[in-house]
Amino acid sequence: MKTREVHLVSRPRGWPEPADFALVERELPAPGDGEVLVRNRFMSVDPYMRGRMNDVKSYVPPFGLNEAMTGGAIGEVVESRSPGLEPGDLVLHDLGWREHAVAPAKRFRAVRPIDGVPPSAYLGVLGMPGLTAYVGLLDIAGLKEGDTVFVSGAAGAVGSLVGQIARLRGAARVIGSAGSDEKVAYLTDRLGFDAVNYRSGPVRRLLAEAAPDGIDVYFDNVGGDHLEAAIEAFNDHGRAAICGAISQYNATEPQATPRNLALVIGKRLTLRGFIVSDHSARFGDFVREVGGWLAEGRIEFDETVFEGLDHAVDAFLAMLRGRNTGKMIVRL
Amino acid sequence: MKTREVHLVSRPRGWPEPADFALVERELPAPGDGEVLVRNRFMSVDPYMRGRMNDVKSYVPPFGLNEAMTGGAIGEVVESRSPGLEPGDLVLHDLGWREHAVAPAKRFRAVRPIDGVPPSAYLGVLGMPGLTAYVGLLDIAGLKEGDTVFVSGAAGAVGSLVGQIARLRGAARVIGSAGSDEKVAYLTDRLGFDAVNYRSGPVRRLLAEAAPDGIDVYFDNVGGDHLEAAIEAFNDHGRAAICGAISQYNATEPQATPRNLALVIGKRLTLRGFIVSDHSARFGDFVREVGGWLAEGRIEFDETVFEGLDHAVDAFLAMLRGRNTGKMIVRL
Repeated sequence: MKTREVHLVSRPRGWPEPADFALVERELPAPGDGEVLVRNRFMSVDPYMRGRMNDVKSYVPPFGLNEAMTGGAIGEVVESRSPGLEPGDLVLHDLGWREHAVAPAKRFRAVRPIDGVPPSAYLGVLGMPGLTAYVGLLDIAGLKEGDTVFVSGAAGAVGSLVGQIARLRGAARVIGSAGSDEKVAYLTDRLGFDAVNYRSGPVRRLLAEAAPDGIDVYFDNVGGDHLEAAIEAFNDHGRAAICGAISQYNATEPQATPRNLALVIGKRLTLRGFIVSDHSARFGDFVREVGGWLAEGRIEFDETVFEGLDHAVDAFLAMLRGRNTGKMIVRL
Repeated sequence: MKTREVHLVSRPRGWPEPADFALVERELPAPGDGEVLVRNRFMSVDPYMRGRMNDVKSYVPPFGLNEAMTGGAIGEVVESRSPGLEPGDLVLHDLGWREHAVAPAKRFRAVRPIDGVPPSAYLGVLGMPGLTAYVGLLDIAGLKEGDTVFVSGAAGAVGSLVGQIARLRGAARVIGSAGSDEKVAYLTDRLGFDAVNYRSGPVRRLLAEAAPDGIDVYFDNVGGDHLEAAIEAFNDHGRAAICGAISQYNATEPQATPRNLALVIGKRLTLRGFIVSDHSARFGDFVREVGGWLAEGRIEFDETVFEGLDHAVDAFLAMLRGRNTGKMIVRL
């Protein structure tokens, strides 16, 4: 039986192009002793994957050339040669970018299907992006009741949750930034945020107008001029959780922002970077609290779905350009 | 009787010039009821004063034009019309930049002379710069035993103490940056730091060579390329206490550094600004601990002394250009 997977075939410089990837067909191996064969149903494309395409040491190792990339995926066990897993089990794992995965059973974590929630939620609201939002907002930025919160990439998988968790935890106001009028409408009408379209003017001015009394917390998915605008708008003792810098991932020159970093002194600001994988000990708290809100219908979550492995690269590139609302998912 | 004081007469743009100041002679008023007349013996010139010369709202209000500036000073009571203070008492206060001060008694805090320690120490090692070093290193950067510490402006009033407190509190190594070979020799021979002369090459390269295993704590007095170099050299979970940005105080354009701020994510860095006046509750702990080391002869402190109010502006300008080793003081 044949299966297909996506390889990285050249390291992008600047924006990745379709030619940097190849869809490769190969023979599907039979699972060995202790191994499991899984048919992937959904895979995730995430901003951090762009960093793994560079040949630089980072907190995750780079993708190898001419081999299948990896990433979050959810699938169904087809054949198991391990006692812990049965055909039909739903499993979460990191062997995305392929139609089937064959690997030792310990690579797969069985998850329960939840009524009314698609399995792909484990790649978003109940998965790594959800935990990122939760830990960044509560532990890194130290959200307090009454805070005014600014979040960039607010219509994305992480940002849309940041703002919702902030509201449920007592933030006075949430201001989200997104890159189109459609997304701004989604943020205001669907999620109840205040919102700015950062393509409609300088972020500094837009934020100053949206938050005349300043902001207390900034959740940064974007870096660059958004971080600069947040520093400008911060009240004393403001805290930024620095989660991503998607505005810079495809930059070929170092980015010379923020230009106002000296304000951290007079305003007593804290800027703190974090990586979700350091915080897996919080997964239980996260699932209890956010899973509870989800069951009560108090959390909105949306997905932008591309169909088929043939369009996985398109989904990844579209996500980098901000074409998704909510979590970008590929259905396999 | 006449007395003299220094006025700010025009707001500097970029580097201050002597013509921005005037030495003004005026009649010394007699102290009213509840007031005290003090003859100043020493006054302080500090980097933060540069910010007060601009007409911008900051954490301290700007100096007024055509009136005496203020700043740390230590003097002796000449005449007291308040029961709490006696002629001959040594008092610490903020009415510097003048030969005599006349003000309500509550503006003056009596301090004890210490054997073997000049009264000017209350403007440095036992005063605001000392508390700044103590709080920034321990509370803001969270120094831990075994840390490698980098400090800029290391031969200055704050920096020289930061490194010494770090060593006494169990840092594995202290690397100081200063702007001349004489200061580097002072840091290595006198204070036992490792040291780099930042004028001898790019700070990034110098620091990488001096700290091949990276740094854990950075105490920033300088900003700009020093902060960028520290971000580059940080180990995971590095912490920066952002205390000053003297490299930028006289800049007329926004400074486009650091260019590598996105590293805060992968390295999980914390950058935190602070102002010493928020931390006066720590003054008792500070005096106990640092005063104890001082009494035991375990802390070196040095002063660069200019003589007379006629040279106070020269002292201030020389301090901004890094001409001092240890605390810059004006003896009146």
